[in-house]
Amino acid sequence: MEPPHTSELYVGVDVGGTNLRAGVVDPEGRILGEARRPALADQGMRRSVEQTIEAIQEAIGNAGYQPTDIRGIGMGVPGGHDSKQGICLFSPNFADSRNVPVTPPVQEATGLPTFMLNDVFVTTLGEHRFGAGRGCDNVVMITLGTGIGGGAIIDGRLPLGHTEGFAEVGHMTIDPDGPVCGCSNRGCWEALAGRDAIIARAVTKIQHGRKTEIAEKVHYRLGSITPALIAHCAEEGDPVALEVMAETGYYVGLGVANLIQIYNPEVLIVGGGIAQSGKVLFDPMRRTVQARAHMVPASTCRITPAELGDDAGVIGGAALVALRLG
Amino acid sequence: MEPPHTSELYVGVDVGGTNLRAGVVDPEGRILGEARRPALADQGMRRSVEQTIEAIQEAIGNAGYQPTDIRGIGMGVPGGHDSKQGICLFSPNFADSRNVPVTPPVQEATGLPTFMLNDVFVTTLGEHRFGAGRGCDNVVMITLGTGIGGGAIIDGRLPLGHTEGFAEVGHMTIDPDGPVCGCSNRGCWEALAGRDAIIARAVTKIQHGRKTEIAEKVHYRLGSITPALIAHCAEEGDPVALEVMAETGYYVGLGVANLIQIYNPEVLIVGGGIAQSGKVLFDPMRRTVQARAHMVPASTCRITPAELGDDAGVIGGAALVALRLG
Repeated sequence: MEPPHTSELYVGVDVGGTNLRAGVVDPEGRILGEARRPALADQGMRRSVEQTIEAIQEAIGNAGYQPTDIRGIGMGVPGGHDSKQGICLFSPNFADSRNVPVTPPVQEATGLPTFMLNDVFVTTLGEHRFGAGRGCDNVVMITLGTGIGGGAIIDGRLPLGHTEGFAEVGHMTIDPDGPVCGCSNRGCWEALAGRDAIIARAVTKIQHGRKTEIAEKVHYRLGSITPALIAHCAEEGDPVALEVMAETGYYVGLGVANLIQIYNPEVLIVGGGIAQSGKVLFDPMRRTVQARAHMVPASTCRITPAELGDDAGVIGGAALVALRLG
Repeated sequence: MEPPHTSELYVGVDVGGTNLRAGVVDPEGRILGEARRPALADQGMRRSVEQTIEAIQEAIGNAGYQPTDIRGIGMGVPGGHDSKQGICLFSPNFADSRNVPVTPPVQEATGLPTFMLNDVFVTTLGEHRFGAGRGCDNVVMITLGTGIGGGAIIDGRLPLGHTEGFAEVGHMTIDPDGPVCGCSNRGCWEALAGRDAIIARAVTKIQHGRKTEIAEKVHYRLGSITPALIAHCAEEGDPVALEVMAETGYYVGLGVANLIQIYNPEVLIVGGGIAQSGKVLFDPMRRTVQARAHMVPASTCRITPAELGDDAGVIGGAALVALRLG
């Protein structure tokens, strides 16, 4: 009989747009060592299952451990999955075709139990166990980026829904007569509060002749404007940038108010790069929630930035293993 | 030692606006006997815990059984509850003050395990176990009435959220510049698709001089118009009534599309009186969902009317007992 496996170390894998990261995570959610595989244009920006296995083995070595010291592997991958079978149905930046088996080959190569979920769900698990949602049984997390993603913990559990991992909170209609979204609907949340919408707000104001630091910092190459730059200028008091952030906060707040009324969480966590801009985003967002959500759930819900930053995916992978292995 | 309790009969209690109903329900969801207590103006339209106990005992007798034949009692009550303690925190039509203990006295008087939840959650449990959601692990239910309520079954479980039973889906913002809602927000779902909004649409058209059956049927006493009358006239082909239903279906559809993208259910059940009007509501609603929701969850979700009608509360009470006692 084998001795019981008592290790409390995990490997988390975050398949991000820029880097695939594998990291060894301890029971307190600290990353002890890691390895990366960048997205390369000559590989169509996609990382393979083989690269994932290499990165996992390298991370374990870099942390000074053996695979037998590890309890399991948890992977967060954008796209849609059949998590029971460990198959990636499709992903923008992982595997080179549809319906690729992922966890079976990783498990075979490493000898470790392996689990995979949608990246936003994994991030939510990480913030719930180790970050801004610690100790809360009801958590909603949103990630603001190119799109808007979302995950939830309800009554201490991670709901997957019918087609598992396909919840599309970013395509909630926020303004029925709003701008056209990439999905072809009008007024989707991410069409009003996603990366492109934020940049478009700044560009429009500049093209209307408003003077702003934003334009000067990119030497009037408006294609180089990023949400991070706008947020930075807003923090420095630039009036146009503050307007852009106030409008963005309003639209983020509309969706946040809806999610609070629908899910009734104890805490709503806002992640993604722009969430780090602090009060220039959070003040108008909170004002909108206060003006919009008058029922009980809103009065008891905290709205707070994510705590794990870029590490949320790797740490969330560890939380996924802990959840699945109990 | 007591013999094991093998009965498979339940009592469901539905505290509705017009009647409090208690019914004995069999394992197939059939009501075998019942008793009612009407809401009386001289009692402030509120029913008491004592009346509930009387109705339960009468229903068991009417069905030809003894309390010892019953497995447990499940109550659906509008308002907010602490379901673990069995306390009604507040309700529009039950108990005469705040924070009234409900399940402990019912349990003591009947000798039966008693459970209580928000009425919409109980209705959702009923449709899930015995109605339009049979066999589905992921169900969203909405009830269209004076307000709009909602409940969900996710991954086979009933999510309660942080303040348990306070989810306020009717106050999701559907149109940020829409009409003012009773909650003081603008453009809430129920301000656009609730009873008053439907009636107001018909009244406005009549006041603008449009000829319609609706006005004739109430002899131009516009205060007597009901959503049921509008739906009836629409079914008979009245153009103004059809317009009202098309506009209503559009606004119902906006919220339904959002819930499908957020919850990712296998089936979305539409209940409440107006849902019985069939295609005059469902056709424009489904068109809106199709035009608005383009992501995976929408392509796999059925939208269907509730099946249990007025009995959903009583039958749902039985489903609540079955859920809690396993």
